[in-house]
Amino acid sequence: MPVPAQALFFDVFGTLVDWRTGIAREAERALRPLGHELDWIAFADAWRGEYQPSMEEVRAGRLPFCKLDVLHRYNLERILPRFKIEGVAEEVLADLNLAWHRLDAWPDVARGLARLGKKFLLAPCSNGNISIMVDLARRNGIVWDAILGSEIAGDFKPKPRVYLAACAAFNLPPRECMMVAAHSRDLKSAAACGLSTAHVARPDEYGPATGEAGPIVPVDVAASSLEQLADKLGV
Amino acid sequence: MPVPAQALFFDVFGTLVDWRTGIAREAERALRPLGHELDWIAFADAWRGEYQPSMEEVRAGRLPFCKLDVLHRYNLERILPRFKIEGVAEEVLADLNLAWHRLDAWPDVARGLARLGKKFLLAPCSNGNISIMVDLARRNGIVWDAILGSEIAGDFKPKPRVYLAACAAFNLPPRECMMVAAHSRDLKSAAACGLSTAHVARPDEYGPATGEAGPIVPVDVAASSLEQLADKLGV
Repeated sequence: MPVPAQALFFDVFGTLVDWRTGIAREAERALRPLGHELDWIAFADAWRGEYQPSMEEVRAGRLPFCKLDVLHRYNLERILPRFKIEGVAEEVLADLNLAWHRLDAWPDVARGLARLGKKFLLAPCSNGNISIMVDLARRNGIVWDAILGSEIAGDFKPKPRVYLAACAAFNLPPRECMMVAAHSRDLKSAAACGLSTAHVARPDEYGPATGEAGPIVPVDVAASSLEQLADKLGV
Repeated sequence: MPVPAQALFFDVFGTLVDWRTGIAREAERALRPLGHELDWIAFADAWRGEYQPSMEEVRAGRLPFCKLDVLHRYNLERILPRFKIEGVAEEVLADLNLAWHRLDAWPDVARGLARLGKKFLLAPCSNGNISIMVDLARRNGIVWDAILGSEIAGDFKPKPRVYLAACAAFNLPPRECMMVAAHSRDLKSAAACGLSTAHVARPDEYGPATGEAGPIVPVDVAASSLEQLADKLGV
C-alpha cells in the first residue's frame, strides 16, 4: 500500500457470510413444511443466479435504484416456477425473502473484524441494503462503524459511485481506504477508483473448491482469512 | 405507545453529546496558541447560532444538500470576524472544524445505549453527517446498528423525509420506531411522521437550567437520562 488505510470496506455476500448453505437451509425451513421436496442447494444457486442480472437492470439505467430486498423478492418469484412451486402464501414468501438477513458468517469473521476494528474504521460496502447488513451484523456479532454500500450510493457495485460514496461518507480520499473482498472483479473496480485492495480467499463459496483460491487481479494484500488479514495489516 | 418500538433513533447534538463545552474547549485549544483571548463559550454559542439558519437554506431549497461538516465550515468563517479573528491558517481552520467530531457524551449515554441496544435497534437520526457520528461513537464508546439521519436522507430535520428515511432503512413502519431527543420540536415532527417519541431532559444544554427540563409537546415517554429511559422501556 502506498498510503496506510484509515478505513476498511467489506464485501459481504461470499466474503463475510456463507449465503449458499444459509439460503438452502432457510428455503428448506420455509418450503418443506408445505410439502416441497427439492435440491435446496440448487434453489439457493438459482436465486443467487438472478442477482447480477437484476442489478444490471439498475446499473444500466433501465430500472430506478431499489434496495436489494426488493430485487431479491422479484428474483424469488422468477425462480419459483422452475422448481414447480406455486400458491405459496404471501406471508411465507415475505419471510423467505428475509433469508438473506439470516446468513451465518465464515468462522474467522467475528474475531477478525474485532481485531481489525482496533486499528481501522470498518464498514460493509455491499450491494445489500442497510437492513440486511444490520441483521447480519446482529446475528454474527459484528460491530460496524457505519453501514455504507449500495443503499447510500443509490447504485450497485461495481459502479464507481458505490466505492466513492463509501469513502466520502468517512471524509476520506480513496487512497486512504481499502476494499476487502473475495471477488477479484470487486477489487479491480475498487482499485480503479483509487482504493487499495485486499483479497480474502473463500474457495468454497459456491461449493468445495469453486471460489477464488486467490486474487486474479493485482491486489495490495492477499489473505486466507480475516485473521490473517489482521496479521498482515499489523493489527 | 400503541405499538412496541423495534428501533430507537437518537438526536445527537444536545441529546447525547455536550456540544457547548466541547466546542469551547476545542476552539480554545486551536486559537489560544495563536494569541487569541476571548469568551470561548460565547464562541461556541455563536458557531451553534448559525446552525439552524444555515440548514434552513437547504430545507427551503435555496441551497442543495451538503453534509453538516460543510455548513460548519461556512458558519465558522462567518463568525470569526465577530471575534476579530483573521489570518488563521487553512490547516488550523480545517482541524477546528472537526471540533464537532470531538465532543463528549453526557455521562449516562454509553451505559444507557448499551442497555437499550439489548432490546432495540439503535441509530442516530441527527443532522450531523456520517463521519461526525462515527467519530463521536468511537470517542464515547457507542455502538450503533447503522448511521442514519440527514446524510442518507439528503435533507435536514425537522423535514419529514429525514425521519421517514431512517424508518425505511430499517425496513420498519414509523409506528414501530421511536425518536429520542431533548428537543420538543424534533419530537413533534417525528410524531407527525408516525413515530413514537421519548423526551430526555438535558436542562443544561445551553448552560445551567437553560435547556428543556421536560417536553413541551405530548410524548410517549419522558425521562431524565438514557438509563431512566431504559428502565421505562423495560430493558
